[in-house]
Amino acid sequence: MINTLYLPEIREMLASDDEQGLNEFCTALHAARTAEFMEGLSSAEAWQVLLATDATTRVDVFTYLPEQQQVDILESADPQEASDLIANMPHDDRVDLLKEVEDVSVDSILPLLPTEERRDIQRLSQHPEGTAGAVMTSDMARLPETLTVREALEEVARQSADHETIYYIYIVDEENHLRGLVSARQLVTNLGRPNKLISDLMERDLLTVTDTDDQETVASKVAEYDFLAIPVVDSEQHLVGIITHDDVIDVLREEAEEDAYLAGAVEPLDETYMETPWYTLAWKRGVWLTVLFVAAMLTAAALKGYEDTLAKVTWLVLFIPLVISSGGNSGTQSTTLVIRGLTNKDLVPGDWLKVVRREIITGLCLGSFLAMLGFFVVRIVQSELTTQQALVVPITLLSVVICGTIVGSLLPLLFRRLGLDEALMSSPFLTGIIDIAGIVIYMSVAIFMLEELGGGVGAG
Amino acid sequence: MINTLYLPEIREMLASDDEQGLNEFCTALHAARTAEFMEGLSSAEAWQVLLATDATTRVDVFTYLPEQQQVDILESADPQEASDLIANMPHDDRVDLLKEVEDVSVDSILPLLPTEERRDIQRLSQHPEGTAGAVMTSDMARLPETLTVREALEEVARQSADHETIYYIYIVDEENHLRGLVSARQLVTNLGRPNKLISDLMERDLLTVTDTDDQETVASKVAEYDFLAIPVVDSEQHLVGIITHDDVIDVLREEAEEDAYLAGAVEPLDETYMETPWYTLAWKRGVWLTVLFVAAMLTAAALKGYEDTLAKVTWLVLFIPLVISSGGNSGTQSTTLVIRGLTNKDLVPGDWLKVVRREIITGLCLGSFLAMLGFFVVRIVQSELTTQQALVVPITLLSVVICGTIVGSLLPLLFRRLGLDEALMSSPFLTGIIDIAGIVIYMSVAIFMLEELGGGVGAG
Repeated sequence: MINTLYLPEIREMLASDDEQGLNEFCTALHAARTAEFMEGLSSAEAWQVLLATDATTRVDVFTYLPEQQQVDILESADPQEASDLIANMPHDDRVDLLKEVEDVSVDSILPLLPTEERRDIQRLSQHPEGTAGAVMTSDMARLPETLTVREALEEVARQSADHETIYYIYIVDEENHLRGLVSARQLVTNLGRPNKLISDLMERDLLTVTDTDDQETVASKVAEYDFLAIPVVDSEQHLVGIITHDDVIDVLREEAEEDAYLAGAVEPLDETYMETPWYTLAWKRGVWLTVLFVAAMLTAAALKGYEDTLAKVTWLVLFIPLVISSGGNSGTQSTTLVIRGLTNKDLVPGDWLKVVRREIITGLCLGSFLAMLGFFVVRIVQSELTTQQALVVPITLLSVVICGTIVGSLLPLLFRRLGLDEALMSSPFLTGIIDIAGIVIYMSVAIFMLEELGGGVGAG
Repeated sequence: MINTLYLPEIREMLASDDEQGLNEFCTALHAARTAEFMEGLSSAEAWQVLLATDATTRVDVFTYLPEQQQVDILESADPQEASDLIANMPHDDRVDLLKEVEDVSVDSILPLLPTEERRDIQRLSQHPEGTAGAVMTSDMARLPETLTVREALEEVARQSADHETIYYIYIVDEENHLRGLVSARQLVTNLGRPNKLISDLMERDLLTVTDTDDQETVASKVAEYDFLAIPVVDSEQHLVGIITHDDVIDVLREEAEEDAYLAGAVEPLDETYMETPWYTLAWKRGVWLTVLFVAAMLTAAALKGYEDTLAKVTWLVLFIPLVISSGGNSGTQSTTLVIRGLTNKDLVPGDWLKVVRREIITGLCLGSFLAMLGFFVVRIVQSELTTQQALVVPITLLSVVICGTIVGSLLPLLFRRLGLDEALMSSPFLTGIIDIAGIVIYMSVAIFMLEELGGGVGAG
């Protein structure tokens, strides 16, 4: 859904080299909206538009362009112009972007950057994907603790253009150890006392994260405390960066997106559904479909063991899918609940006994209800059965649901204990175990209950 | 996991009425951490601790206490003290909180509030759950456009304590129509030009949301534009509130949480897994388990129609679960992808033809692969079959997977078109349709292919 509203005008201005008109277009709207209107342009056209405006607006609009367009621009632009742009970009965004640009172009851009910027890029790009270090930015406002309110405000105003946020100002000692935090709000509120030292204002008890912390942990900390940003320190308490509210929102969206795909048994997509080529889609689905297929294959092997039983009492076949799916559904529910509990830190693997106790009670309750429903279904579908015969299905349903809840709740706890990602591993294993268990339970109950299979309990 | 570290000291200070010590405890740490240390206290004790400190700190710590503790405090505290607290709370939080407090207590607190605060609470609580109006707060910084930079800074500093954020300052005309936005950053940067008019600084092209907008739409707008806050206007463009970054994070987390539960066929929980009583759990699971059970029941009815076929060729039974689950899994994948596409605005119902085309190609590819695997499985499990007999399963698998992808992708588009929530509706319908379709396809292919069932193609 590309917005083509202004495309003809922009192209006309490009053709007539109307720099003033282009600059007006770039500065009239919020950068994000300007970028939206430029999505229909080729990378070369978009870059030509951006060159018509000042460096600040150029970076602003550029960072809102779709990633592929950004990559294309950097790969085709003049290296000097590209490096000027990179020098002005937010420190975290440019590191992510340069990872996508082909090496040849990066090699021609990097040497043209000021040494300090180049070092910063190298430092930031060392952090492994998914850690606080990989999400943080290094362009925060940083001041010594010896300043007064007036000096601090002047210094912040002076540095303002270089920083992603000036609303939290970090106070460091001479060796860059984090000492405290002053908010722009505190400075503004103390405008009337310009000679007050910021060390008297600053908050000293700061919550920090370490650069090696998991990005999910960081996101939930910021979310819990309603911070605008959280400082990142290294193992020696040096201030190395900050993670801002918008990065936290990105992390939360990314993680939610990933979970949603995995819950649907699809490897997370990097692009949108429509932009992903069909063979990538087929691959991202095929992996999981095959794993689940192999798990389901075992049901054929399990049923094979009961071929004679099924040949003798053919009506048993009718309820196989019902029995299997009931176990699977109740198991999936338990897995979902326990995974949410683990994610929200409400549960730890050590709680397994408490969890099992809860699940058995819930399973008994749900299983009894489904068993009742199941009894009526059997009565309707296969009305000529005796009560004892018809009871095979409800007894199986109750057992399968309890089995599903126990296995479904223990599997994620086990995977978490083994250090595996429970969200990823639990589902195929659960399917495999529950499907087979469902068949074995069903057939065992049938053999035990039915006279014609050599079993038969009660009055027979 | 309650932190009990300071409980003995706090209780000792309470016993000895050590107001100074308690005040120190309240102000030494970040309010969120102070609240953490107080979780182990009874509501009466917690309130006694908070009464020992100043009104601002009291509100700060109070808002970080667990909701249940907040409710208990308001229900048992002296109404005058409670209303003082309410008067100082963030406008959005107090509305949410008062909804949880029993009516008797609310009726004793509200009349003690200043009229203006009481009206604000009434106004905010009129907005239906899930809309921008229900998430927004009304304590934003608001200035007339006639001020200079210096006057604006002084005014903001004066109002600072009353507002949730002072980093975006909204400019309104005399009738409260939103005219523009000045950021605290712009004011600070323009400290050197104190007589400049803020109307010359302000951004006029503002993105706004309407109070009736869906909270998810608002959250994705703020996330996309990296805003600190977004203004909310009513139908006549009056500024009625703002939604801040921390509210957006809450909305995103809430929505992701809800989606995760629904994907696991559980009604979203209001509390944590461990805090939810077992009967609530059973109910929230039972609803969906029953719906899915009814869908699966239909498989019994469908199989009933093929009882004779299955009795004649008993080996067909072995592969029933495999066939059904393959269709279900590929259908779930398609549904997941299309729902993600709809949520991310990558897709609209009108794209259905493009989607079906993609899904058929993907389905062909995935189905052929599973068919190949299936052929080997049949060869191993049931080795005495002729090639033609063994082909029944792979042909079925291919057809079922294609059917799954088509139905799975069209259902959410259809539900969206009908105005129903696709995330909620699609799954049980998909299960029902695909399971039945799997059985019908399987049996039809068997009847067509197998000579012993009166079919038989090719050399026979």
